[in-house]
Amino acid sequence: MVRDYVNGILSSDKFILSKTITLVESTLPKDIKLAQEVLDKVLPHTGNSLRIGITGAPGVGKSTFIEALGNWVTKQKLKLAVLTVDPSSQYSKGSILGDKTRMGKLSHNALAYIRPSAAGSVLGGVGQKTRESILLCEAAGYEVIFVETVGVGQSETVVHDMVDFFLLLLLPGAGDELQGIKKGILEMADLLAINKAEGENESNALKTKHDFEQAFRLFQKAESNWQPLIVTCSALTEMGIADIWDYIQQYKSLTQLNGYFNRRRQQQNLSWLHELVRYNLEKSFYQNATVAQALPAIEQEVLQGRQAAISAARQLIEISEPFKRNDPTR
Amino acid sequence: MVRDYVNGILSSDKFILSKTITLVESTLPKDIKLAQEVLDKVLPHTGNSLRIGITGAPGVGKSTFIEALGNWVTKQKLKLAVLTVDPSSQYSKGSILGDKTRMGKLSHNALAYIRPSAAGSVLGGVGQKTRESILLCEAAGYEVIFVETVGVGQSETVVHDMVDFFLLLLLPGAGDELQGIKKGILEMADLLAINKAEGENESNALKTKHDFEQAFRLFQKAESNWQPLIVTCSALTEMGIADIWDYIQQYKSLTQLNGYFNRRRQQQNLSWLHELVRYNLEKSFYQNATVAQALPAIEQEVLQGRQAAISAARQLIEISEPFKRNDPTR
Repeated sequence: MVRDYVNGILSSDKFILSKTITLVESTLPKDIKLAQEVLDKVLPHTGNSLRIGITGAPGVGKSTFIEALGNWVTKQKLKLAVLTVDPSSQYSKGSILGDKTRMGKLSHNALAYIRPSAAGSVLGGVGQKTRESILLCEAAGYEVIFVETVGVGQSETVVHDMVDFFLLLLLPGAGDELQGIKKGILEMADLLAINKAEGENESNALKTKHDFEQAFRLFQKAESNWQPLIVTCSALTEMGIADIWDYIQQYKSLTQLNGYFNRRRQQQNLSWLHELVRYNLEKSFYQNATVAQALPAIEQEVLQGRQAAISAARQLIEISEPFKRNDPTR
Repeated sequence: MVRDYVNGILSSDKFILSKTITLVESTLPKDIKLAQEVLDKVLPHTGNSLRIGITGAPGVGKSTFIEALGNWVTKQKLKLAVLTVDPSSQYSKGSILGDKTRMGKLSHNALAYIRPSAAGSVLGGVGQKTRESILLCEAAGYEVIFVETVGVGQSETVVHDMVDFFLLLLLPGAGDELQGIKKGILEMADLLAINKAEGENESNALKTKHDFEQAFRLFQKAESNWQPLIVTCSALTEMGIADIWDYIQQYKSLTQLNGYFNRRRQQQNLSWLHELVRYNLEKSFYQNATVAQALPAIEQEVLQGRQAAISAARQLIEISEPFKRNDPTR
């Protein structure tokens, strides 16, 4: 059984890959266990892709952009997987068909694999499942992986921590289109692409590009030694798309040469280990029956300032029996 | 005993306040317990200050700035407490004298209380202790609290989450002086003060101000509805210091009127509860003897990509006996 999955993935069988990602996304213990066994087996075949995060507010033309850049990537004879991370958007409500429809050309491209995330998952879970999905896609031979987020929630930081390159899509007309983008995201971007820079939008897009270039000069230089780029493009006319791919290649060369690429991957692995531990500890804690029962009232006390957070935390930890015994401060 | 501390704090006795903060900063269980009891008792008297985070890279003139703004605050007949948060700087190596020396005037001001953080604390601990110190200072009647960080590490996010207003100090000459400031900090600032704007620096400071004004237009509007301000000042000549205090008052009025001020305080309380729970869960977990012994080798495996983070996390959780029994996924 495990072997069938492993063989299917390693032979790049899209159907088996999808089935395995479904296992990864499952909440059933037996599915999770099976998925983990498969993951352990394919691990030596992972890590060989370029992982690219693509984010932007709704209306920025993300699907069209991903289609345009994706088709260019596959024209380079590279295998591309597109994963979406978004616990709240309309695309993630289980509508795989919806995602395939919005990326029509790409979904019929033999070199491309499109996988929307399952609906209703919590953020930590989405992050976890997406990281595992990345590994599975890599084992299936995908050389480029796009991780798409909608750019309005907390998922960008999570995605930023699992990719090599982070691309932020904006519209011409500086300022307004950032309304939906969470603070701090701008400073995370390795490349900022101002989309829809076609027709009468063109001069506006160039002005926006100039404004952001000025702003980015004020930002701290990244540890990667990469100076974030601001470009205009049109996913519709494909203007600038090939250049964006070139820039991503330049980033890869630079950071592989200066060692940042691998160092960052290693750090991501290690952070991920500790995040998983934290996620599991918190899950166990808050699912503890006594804690779950007491929590709402305690949270209200703290919200209203009637109880100090520190004493509330102590109270919660004390009522959660199994943790208490292990508390070194006692 | 508890009563003596409580009475001392409520009567604004600086010596007792310092002794209590020392208890808060202690790692001895009996000190922690005593500190908690004191904190619980004084809690009804907390929350009435304006909490201001002040950050900036070394060399930006932070001490002089804090002296200048602090003296202005006390001239308004307001009682001011200055707390430093910085697990790594030279100021925090237990040298209370050092801090008092670098803020000479303020330390002799009867309305001011200066307290550097204890040396060697871990970040989570510093955050925890500083929040408790804020509450103690409030109970002692301090109406304005400065929380100072050095601006180069992770402490800014921690401090940002415990204050009402976040002020970032920079030097004239855009760009370079941000070298030491962590990414994302810029977008957190409610006010950016370009210090040392005196003499021949003045025109350069105005240019820097202009550059940052342009950049800040591209940022997302804050939930507070406050448009972050960029100002020039000179802590040395006190130019601009009174204006900065006015702006902070404007921020307070605006956000108290639109409800953001209290909403943010409540959210901070609640986040803090969950952070404390997490901090304690992780501490217990990583101090578990089996986990502590196995961790270094497992971390290496994960760093090198030889083991998936997910299986490593599972392995660690399984060997930590008390947690295992509570794991709902089993």
